[in-house]
Amino acid sequence: MARILDRIDSPAQLRSLSVAEMQTLAEEIRQEIIETVSTRGGHLAPNLGVVELTLALHTVFNTPHDLLVWDIGHQAYVHKLLTGRRERFRTIRQFGGLSGYLRREESPYDVFGASHASTSISAALGLAVARDLQGQDFKVVAIIGDGALTGGMALEALNNAGSLKKNLIIILNDNEKSISDNVGAIATVLAKARRMQTSPGYQRLREVTKGSIERLPVVGDVALEAAARAETSFKQFVLHSKSGTIFEELGFKFFGPFDGHDLALLIDVLENIKRIEGPIVVQVVTKKGKGWTFAEEDATKWHGPGAFDYRTGVIKRNPNDPPTYTEIFANTLVELAERDQAIVGITAAMAEGTGLKKLHQRFPERYFDVGIAEQHAVTFAGGLAVGGLRPVVAIYSTFMQRAFDQVIHDICMQNLHVVFAMDRAGVVGEDGPTQHGLFDIAFMRMIPNMKVMAPRDENELRHMLYTALYMDGPVCLRYPRGKARGVPLDKELRPLEIGKAELLTPATLSEARRCQCALLAYGTTVELAEQAATELREEGFNVAVVNARWAKPLDEDLILDLARTTRHLITIEDHMVAGGFGSAVLELLAREGCHDARVKLIGFPDRLVEHGAPSILKELYGLSSAHIKEIVRELLGITTPAPTAHSRPASA
Amino acid sequence: MARILDRIDSPAQLRSLSVAEMQTLAEEIRQEIIETVSTRGGHLAPNLGVVELTLALHTVFNTPHDLLVWDIGHQAYVHKLLTGRRERFRTIRQFGGLSGYLRREESPYDVFGASHASTSISAALGLAVARDLQGQDFKVVAIIGDGALTGGMALEALNNAGSLKKNLIIILNDNEKSISDNVGAIATVLAKARRMQTSPGYQRLREVTKGSIERLPVVGDVALEAAARAETSFKQFVLHSKSGTIFEELGFKFFGPFDGHDLALLIDVLENIKRIEGPIVVQVVTKKGKGWTFAEEDATKWHGPGAFDYRTGVIKRNPNDPPTYTEIFANTLVELAERDQAIVGITAAMAEGTGLKKLHQRFPERYFDVGIAEQHAVTFAGGLAVGGLRPVVAIYSTFMQRAFDQVIHDICMQNLHVVFAMDRAGVVGEDGPTQHGLFDIAFMRMIPNMKVMAPRDENELRHMLYTALYMDGPVCLRYPRGKARGVPLDKELRPLEIGKAELLTPATLSEARRCQCALLAYGTTVELAEQAATELREEGFNVAVVNARWAKPLDEDLILDLARTTRHLITIEDHMVAGGFGSAVLELLAREGCHDARVKLIGFPDRLVEHGAPSILKELYGLSSAHIKEIVRELLGITTPAPTAHSRPASA
Repeated sequence: MARILDRIDSPAQLRSLSVAEMQTLAEEIRQEIIETVSTRGGHLAPNLGVVELTLALHTVFNTPHDLLVWDIGHQAYVHKLLTGRRERFRTIRQFGGLSGYLRREESPYDVFGASHASTSISAALGLAVARDLQGQDFKVVAIIGDGALTGGMALEALNNAGSLKKNLIIILNDNEKSISDNVGAIATVLAKARRMQTSPGYQRLREVTKGSIERLPVVGDVALEAAARAETSFKQFVLHSKSGTIFEELGFKFFGPFDGHDLALLIDVLENIKRIEGPIVVQVVTKKGKGWTFAEEDATKWHGPGAFDYRTGVIKRNPNDPPTYTEIFANTLVELAERDQAIVGITAAMAEGTGLKKLHQRFPERYFDVGIAEQHAVTFAGGLAVGGLRPVVAIYSTFMQRAFDQVIHDICMQNLHVVFAMDRAGVVGEDGPTQHGLFDIAFMRMIPNMKVMAPRDENELRHMLYTALYMDGPVCLRYPRGKARGVPLDKELRPLEIGKAELLTPATLSEARRCQCALLAYGTTVELAEQAATELREEGFNVAVVNARWAKPLDEDLILDLARTTRHLITIEDHMVAGGFGSAVLELLAREGCHDARVKLIGFPDRLVEHGAPSILKELYGLSSAHIKEIVRELLGITTPAPTAHSRPASA
Repeated sequence: MARILDRIDSPAQLRSLSVAEMQTLAEEIRQEIIETVSTRGGHLAPNLGVVELTLALHTVFNTPHDLLVWDIGHQAYVHKLLTGRRERFRTIRQFGGLSGYLRREESPYDVFGASHASTSISAALGLAVARDLQGQDFKVVAIIGDGALTGGMALEALNNAGSLKKNLIIILNDNEKSISDNVGAIATVLAKARRMQTSPGYQRLREVTKGSIERLPVVGDVALEAAARAETSFKQFVLHSKSGTIFEELGFKFFGPFDGHDLALLIDVLENIKRIEGPIVVQVVTKKGKGWTFAEEDATKWHGPGAFDYRTGVIKRNPNDPPTYTEIFANTLVELAERDQAIVGITAAMAEGTGLKKLHQRFPERYFDVGIAEQHAVTFAGGLAVGGLRPVVAIYSTFMQRAFDQVIHDICMQNLHVVFAMDRAGVVGEDGPTQHGLFDIAFMRMIPNMKVMAPRDENELRHMLYTALYMDGPVCLRYPRGKARGVPLDKELRPLEIGKAELLTPATLSEARRCQCALLAYGTTVELAEQAATELREEGFNVAVVNARWAKPLDEDLILDLARTTRHLITIEDHMVAGGFGSAVLELLAREGCHDARVKLIGFPDRLVEHGAPSILKELYGLSSAHIKEIVRELLGITTPAPTAHSRPASA
């Protein structure tokens, strides 16, 4: 049978569907999303949770004339399917395909890009203010999860929006989740309201929009149905829902909670809401993973799974795969925490993603999930450090950007001993530009007192975490998303010398000095450098490889020595060139008057790095042994293919 | 008569004073602060507002065993006078003297450094958690202004603290102010409570701590007095003060508002509060500028004045001084806004400091003060830009660090046209390390799509603002605190070419190519470069001076040309060397294989730059014409004083 979904090329077509047809459509959408994500991974549970809500929003609001501003955007798959991107949907998150988040360049329906949390109210308020200043007439709707409300930025925006009194509708998509379970006082307040089960705000809504339900144009007998439901819920009607109070204090009209999977109700509610003036908050209760048993039962596991079998709910994973960097980090942290009671861990709503869940299981009282609140996480850790503990703040590289000022002002300026474990450093792949961790070396190394390091493999990660925990002052380490190299792990942890790099090949410094060129590789790019050097040696070139370990302090002695002896340095990093590790090397050489070394920097150029498999992106941007070899040849002024080691003597 | 103040070497001595003596002490403290600030500038109104509160806190709590965590710290002068720093107080904010903020290295009473807003609850919560994990026993008290509560970070911390249920006391110093008047919904809520005038929370407090008032050990007949007062206020007693609700929803016990200038009451209240378990918020109403008529009448003007006559309240300013960069920026913005309705301005609680007050006066509907909420300010501006307006976000360089992720994620990744006007760039002087704007070139230039510029003087600032407003995409400009150069202003504004530097001397590029060295000066360091070049020319050296204008995009053609011809470049910037303008020049040369130029970078080294007059700091760190000349000589390999222009032919 032909799917209704295949007829929907724009939201306008939704508006002529009956509720029954729309319910069928909802199931088709779920199936499409489950099948698509099962083949390539992606965000699952968040999207299954907002199928009805998205349908209702695009039905009631005249998109794209009316503006929907989605927070985070990982729940925008339904929105994409309904806004002309159905046919490209199976390309989602693949190189050259649809983005897994919102992108303005992708569609006029993507009003404001997103993928970090808590931004939607700010953006929507800006749009509402611009509309009014220019005398335009349309609706602006922000859709934000309850998890994102723990982000201070959303609260700043609520504070501002509550006083500006613009027409602005905030849909609070209340699903009890960030990615992990929600935490904090706001979550508790919302939970109270949820336990009321039905829609105590509904009657209030009817009072405010007196009679409007009779005028509902599109939903047929839904109005009556809804009225009947309101009758039932009346008994539980509470004029001031407990969760609403906080919003009302801030100047909003508050309605809800409403069942976010009752399409007819949602359409009715939104039709009424859109007639009301001023800033409004509507609490809609949804279930992450709705409609697919596996995800309903464990929405955290199914938040953003890799490929899986959608019939059995088994996530595909090769049993021979090495562990991930995240797992190694988490296990090592727990191992160290067993021996040292002062070690505590802090996550900003990423217990699973950062691996800190393991610390939570072992030492619940030494684990802190502060909500999607990176700023607070960092300064809270500062307080813990002053109080005599050894805090490890585990935040993805990209989200650490949120706490840049706190790292400067609260940690580094006081030289507090806080360890920043930055997972997902470098290109993360399919999540794309907003999620890549390509700035952290630069923004961390510029701060006085901060020390900056990165391991070449998971074994070194363990030693680096140990080193970081038992040195002084602020220190950060970065490691990439995904599988580690599968190297053996040393049993004994040992401290690495601060600011000392590791010469990998040749074996001695005196030999290295005689090389034609030195590759200074930072973090996991060491593997590429070794590969390139091996191949170059086979071609007859003599290339040294250094595992830099520290972007700050640099191993100044070794770098200056090799600069002066080999006179050709190439830095390699999974990071922007601007301000990164290579840039630090250039600054060192300039400072020391080492002007005669020729230096090349390999890293990402000054542009947004798109989404796609990390292997594709690294290849594309020259983080490959082939490109390293090319740069070596360029630097050494060799334009023709080099002679092989064998042929060399003959040609000499 | 000997002052009581002169007998107070530590807070312990306060605890034996009578309330009457303490009131005398309060007046002595006010006099000391007014006189001190009058001679050198500093924070005045905030300190006058917390005299009684600070006395009460140090009397009731056993500092430094109990911990006081002050937010912002510009109100810590009273605290400094009472904690062993009385004799050094007159050195405050001067080079080598006391800091104007809190510094851990200055005193064990300075528990957690501060000067950016909204950090205290996070830090205090960390301290409380560390205390409990280690089984220690002391009180932790955060003192935060109502203005700082508009910062999302404080709200993140409240959300976390409300659920962790630690013993933690938050004093809400409610003075209706950030630096400007407070804005937003939270301010409105607090204002409602303030209008109740007396202390409706007092009776509640008595109920919670039944009988404890009779046990008050130190305040003598104050307890009775206070009880009497409670009697009077009883009529106005409201069990749930309206302002308290929001805190109670978040899990706090709430008490207040209390009169923050009634010492006896405050001591009584705090004695009772400290016996209560769990997280507590106490609202204390204070008046900024209290006790000095001028400041009481205009607390914003007297927030942080320069030197003044404390008898007449006249702020000293030389009528012949040139305008400040801030004034030029603000006037130019208004001038442009007159012609273009799309121009709007956004400030984060800094209407006066950024000069946006002028826009507010002229076009109130196109001016937005969003509170101490830099994150929201930036993304809100993103919404305005998408909505078709031309937003100018005016935020000090140091506070822009708070919105780093928003600049990346919401503005640059979407290539939105938002103008960032960063005042107080470079060393700001007396406010010290946390307030210097020494990171902005680095953190802005690393972001794809961002364009980065700085004017050499106020005339160029005007053209740059115009340029920024009528180009595409995100752009930032930086300018320093304080007086401009006093150059004439062009009447007509014109767009500067993007990425084009200005060759100042010699007049033509062909002459410049023959120079021995080129100085690439960024922003207001051009003045120093010109001075150095003039002096060097007198000594017989031939030095070119370039006003770089853009740190991104660089004028690649000119820089590469001069690198290849003069072979000696020196970059100069009022910024950290790490990742800054000079670093960008090095990256360019490396990328283009221009390996033969010798380059030196002049800027601030990798350490915290202390407080002190900007002239002292610049001299100290080599931002001086003398140092530039020294570097030129070093780069050119000249160790002896150079021959003069006259003697040169003879010696040749």
